[in-house]
Amino acid sequence: MTTPSQLSTGSADDPTAVNDLFDVIAEAAGERLSAQIRFIIEIDKLKGIVRQTPLIDGSRNENDAEHTWHLMTMAVILAEFADADVDLTRALRMLLIHDLVEIDAGDTFLYANAEAKATQAVRERTAADRLFGLLPDEQGQELRALWEEFEAHKSADARFARTMDRLQPFLHNVFTGGIGWRKHGVTADQVRDRMSVIADGSADLHALVEHLIDEAVARGHLPAGAA
Amino acid sequence: MTTPSQLSTGSADDPTAVNDLFDVIAEAAGERLSAQIRFIIEIDKLKGIVRQTPLIDGSRNENDAEHTWHLMTMAVILAEFADADVDLTRALRMLLIHDLVEIDAGDTFLYANAEAKATQAVRERTAADRLFGLLPDEQGQELRALWEEFEAHKSADARFARTMDRLQPFLHNVFTGGIGWRKHGVTADQVRDRMSVIADGSADLHALVEHLIDEAVARGHLPAGAA
Repeated sequence: MTTPSQLSTGSADDPTAVNDLFDVIAEAAGERLSAQIRFIIEIDKLKGIVRQTPLIDGSRNENDAEHTWHLMTMAVILAEFADADVDLTRALRMLLIHDLVEIDAGDTFLYANAEAKATQAVRERTAADRLFGLLPDEQGQELRALWEEFEAHKSADARFARTMDRLQPFLHNVFTGGIGWRKHGVTADQVRDRMSVIADGSADLHALVEHLIDEAVARGHLPAGAA
Repeated sequence: MTTPSQLSTGSADDPTAVNDLFDVIAEAAGERLSAQIRFIIEIDKLKGIVRQTPLIDGSRNENDAEHTWHLMTMAVILAEFADADVDLTRALRMLLIHDLVEIDAGDTFLYANAEAKATQAVRERTAADRLFGLLPDEQGQELRALWEEFEAHKSADARFARTMDRLQPFLHNVFTGGIGWRKHGVTADQVRDRMSVIADGSADLHALVEHLIDEAVARGHLPAGAA
């Protein structure tokens, strides 16, 4: 450890007074820890990426950081419903970082149009380059590989993780009487289509979702849409 | 699966139109899954528990759900700095639920007075009874035990988890030029005292924290306090 920097005299109101702290950390504790803390500070921006999903109390929409915490808790609670043999630790690590790319690429609504979806992959890949690139090489590559695995949704762990990622906003819509669905003119057919992948992770949870879609239509919370 | 309830005809604007959905779920998918979803819906309230920690961009204070996601990510990134052999999966599960009791008990500021701290344990224990009690028995007991372990901070996993829980708001204060510290009149002596437990989890991270406290004092972001 070195002594505190005597060079920097910026006041607390000077925004430049903290930007050089990564250098201070590198000098005191090494480049590796400095890079890791730079990543930790950078990803704070996930808390500002607002989704289309209302909180259960309807007071505001949730952000990506809250969403991520919620569905990780769901994964722990609902792990028993996974059809395949899932490594919960891997699924949790995948979920932890699955939305980080939205810091640069923004949130793409599950029911967005084809144009927005078409550019989504490119925007997210560029974001992954930048964000995971902040970390020490082997650590960035490890998290990047987990994100790629989540996006490919081929492994059992990724499929269960995606099941949680779809189920969480669905439950929010169900338990707010369909605020988000009706605001965006989403129909039951569209919801059934987007929720069909839940069956890849859990037949029981998919059956429940189908039941709750019918229930939401019967209650007038979700338009039936074209038959 | 049964057919959707024909009894409920509440409109989307009727707040009672969703309260009976737990019964609908129980009938369709069993009491166990219904209880689990009740817990999942209830803990959404963690997103409304606002902390004393500013976001890095200073735009607002963060809430418990965001805080939890952030420090879980930190635990994955900084696991290599744990002095003891830590089971990261257990530490992550502990962190996931460590602040749930604040849904009922509220957030107790790390630098709160003795009176607030004295009632904190009782309030949080009552909250744990209610919240973990929503889950199926063995699942609720398992998470309750993890929370008790975190609170006791005796195991290596709990000590590392607590290290992250202290380091996260500390970094937010450092990288916002001490907004939170100065707002609450916190001094360097107090910060050193509260951060001392980081040494129980990681000597390297504790050394960095001490260095950054000195740096913050040198920059005028943190009052030195009584010598």
